Amino acid sequence: MAIITLTTDFGEKDHFAGATKGAIYSELPDVRIVDISHSVSPFNIPEAAYIIQNAYSSFPKGTIHIIGIDSEINQENKHIAVKLDDHYFICANNGIMSMICSEIAPEKIVEINIHDKIQTSFPVLDVFVKVACHIARGGTLEVIGKTITQIKPIKNIVPYVNDDKTQIIGSVIYIDNYGNVITNIKRGFFETIQKGRAFEISARNHKFRTIFEKYSDIVNFEIPEDKRFDEGRGLVVFNSGNFLEIAVYKSNSATIGSASSLMGLGIMDTVSINFIKD
Amino acid sequence: MAIITLTTDFGEKDHFAGATKGAIYSELPDVRIVDISHSVSPFNIPEAAYIIQNAYSSFPKGTIHIIGIDSEINQENKHIAVKLDDHYFICANNGIMSMICSEIAPEKIVEINIHDKIQTSFPVLDVFVKVACHIARGGTLEVIGKTITQIKPIKNIVPYVNDDKTQIIGSVIYIDNYGNVITNIKRGFFETIQKGRAFEISARNHKFRTIFEKYSDIVNFEIPEDKRFDEGRGLVVFNSGNFLEIAVYKSNSATIGSASSLMGLGIMDTVSINFIKD
Amino acid sequence: MAIITLTTDFGEKDHFAGATKGAIYSELPDVRIVDISHSVSPFNIPEAAYIIQNAYSSFPKGTIHIIGIDSEINQENKHIAVKLDDHYFICANNGIMSMICSEIAPEKIVEINIHDKIQTSFPVLDVFVKVACHIARGGTLEVIGKTITQIKPIKNIVPYVNDDKTQIIGSVIYIDNYGNVITNIKRGFFETIQKGRAFEISARNHKFRTIFEKYSDIVNFEIPEDKRFDEGRGLVVFNSGNFLEIAVYKSNSATIGSASSLMGLGIMDTVSINFIKD
Repeated sequence: MAIITLTTDFGEKDHFAGATKGAIYSELPDVRIVDISHSVSPFNIPEAAYIIQNAYSSFPKGTIHIIGIDSEINQENKHIAVKLDDHYFICANNGIMSMICSEIAPEKIVEINIHDKIQTSFPVLDVFVKVACHIARGGTLEVIGKTITQIKPIKNIVPYVNDDKTQIIGSVIYIDNYGNVITNIKRGFFETIQKGRAFEISARNHKFRTIFEKYSDIVNFEIPEDKRFDEGRGLVVFNSGNFLEIAVYKSNSATIGSASSLMGLGIMDTVSINFIKD
Repeated sequence: MAIITLTTDFGEKDHFAGATKGAIYSELPDVRIVDISHSVSPFNIPEAAYIIQNAYSSFPKGTIHIIGIDSEINQENKHIAVKLDDHYFICANNGIMSMICSEIAPEKIVEINIHDKIQTSFPVLDVFVKVACHIARGGTLEVIGKTITQIKPIKNIVPYVNDDKTQIIGSVIYIDNYGNVITNIKRGFFETIQKGRAFEISARNHKFRTIFEKYSDIVNFEIPEDKRFDEGRGLVVFNSGNFLEIAVYKSNSATIGSASSLMGLGIMDTVSINFIKD
Repeated sequence: MAIITLTTDFGEKDHFAGATKGAIYSELPDVRIVDISHSVSPFNIPEAAYIIQNAYSSFPKGTIHIIGIDSEINQENKHIAVKLDDHYFICANNGIMSMICSEIAPEKIVEINIHDKIQTSFPVLDVFVKVACHIARGGTLEVIGKTITQIKPIKNIVPYVNDDKTQIIGSVIYIDNYGNVITNIKRGFFETIQKGRAFEISARNHKFRTIFEKYSDIVNFEIPEDKRFDEGRGLVVFNSGNFLEIAVYKSNSATIGSASSLMGLGIMDTVSINFIKD
């Protein structure tokens, strides 16, 4: 059974996601639809890029991913379908795919050209659903678009490294549900520059000299539980997507606070790493 | 495979939606359940009416829609099942169906009368699920209720038109995830009154003389992208449901603002259209 | 078809829930996945315990419930799988199961020991999904863990009763989407102590002497509808899960207010019941 996923900024309340699912089932009764997220901030392309990059690869090969963010077609915002890593992605050519494509080369990109048959003010429902169902039925990308070789980039995908490789300057690209602050510095990139050197991570006036493997590595379990004060302490990990993340142990934005709220870190803020001479 | 959709004010956190799905699968293992929305504002019947009206028709004929808003049964709030446009709707008789029924005549309305066998403080799970599964198995409405001919209306479904047809006075019925302001003025209704005349739309102290087909029609693509200032500009469109909508280009309530926040427009506020003499 | 449910604090926005579903479908293409909730407050174990307790029993026997709250493994937070009431539960041994287990004795509890093969910073995806799919394929708990007999308790599951049984002192364990305030006093427990006596319920400075069967029992339908003022009035019911609940009729936290907002009642606040001498 084909799988179609949905990642959109439709929100949880409006009819848009429900109507999209109805349109898919109307065309393909036996497909499986999986919501990845409908709570991307409106028109926030970097957020959508981060979410889809971290979700897609858990799905079986052949899965079709509809990404509905800023998808109104106009002369500067065309629709594309991309085959990459044996997955299919359908979205506007607005930068959403540039984060994934910076790591894995696409096998095929087409600019969708079925719009002459479709008049729409709801492109996810009217265009993306048609393309997804075409692919789910085994159709090729060439039938619904013309091949292109370039997609639109977004900024701040790759952190900056200075000439003598003593410093990485990254930036915050995502704040998660726990208020954890996720940077664009990936584990492989970091380790290539680090070459085993000691380092200091700086984010505003906060400094860290250790990157943990998991959150509770900050806890000293030899201290009795009622004498520990770990909840609310800051730490740095490589998260499950291998992004460098500034976190707070057992954070909760509504109660003890989070990395974002306690350290005042927001999207696009700078996080730098200085390597220390041997 | 039968499809049952859910539109409720249960919210995203509580167990109500999950328990309802479990009860459906317990009775009908092979049904398909689709969430339309669980984030209707508590007890907000006009919101639910707008959402279900805009979502239902994308689903295949024969789909069964459970609407769980203000569904506790009492002598003034009976349960109904409605067949309309080859879809089935199960809800309380509290006005939710009046928006759809004002456009398409129901084929059949029954007042559900299976309650003598059911003692419940969770009517969606105990009553609506039973009725939905009965219909999904091919059962008729007559078996679970007695035919009625009238449903309870809600106010403000149809805008007001003055006697000499120079003015339409509508009202705001919904604010969507983008903060767009949706009125009760539908395209067909507008065009019937307009008869090709020029017009001016007024909402608070904002005036508009054009209704666009899509949001980016406001953009002049001949101006270089870095010299445009379209984000945050107000405009009017007929949305994908053909409702007249006051929008803000690339709105985001949390950042640049939205039609609702920037123009101070809320539910039940007035939007008027004055037609200009030839 | 096996059913796997998900109850987590992942939130509605991040990729975690989507990635988890993808991993399940990758391993078991024919399973059915049902979201119970992804909006548990971060690390809030009592909330998760309340939600899963009230949702699970609507599902068919044999359903597998993944509960992803505070599930990072460490020497004090092991992973367990529990068979209880012919349902399976997979979670950390952090108290989540103690509310259910206080009412129904588990048939089998195992401490999961497949971690030597798995290095993970995303245990729901890497460990719980594997265990769930193992069970869904008909595997036994003994294969993935060693039997244990005790699970970690949480506090405040059972209310306090004084020696002469004239008073029950309970506490607030959950606030629902309507702002209703749910206590740890269950109907069966209450009736055993009450033995038919009259009573007075106290919550802050609010007093109630009646427990209704449903919310609209507060309404006097003999009064014409436009002369009633029931919306916003407080009342007490046993809710659909048989918990004593302090509610406000047709509450909406954003408009007329709710039991929580109007009476100032929050999690862990005290609700007491004094029985009146005959």
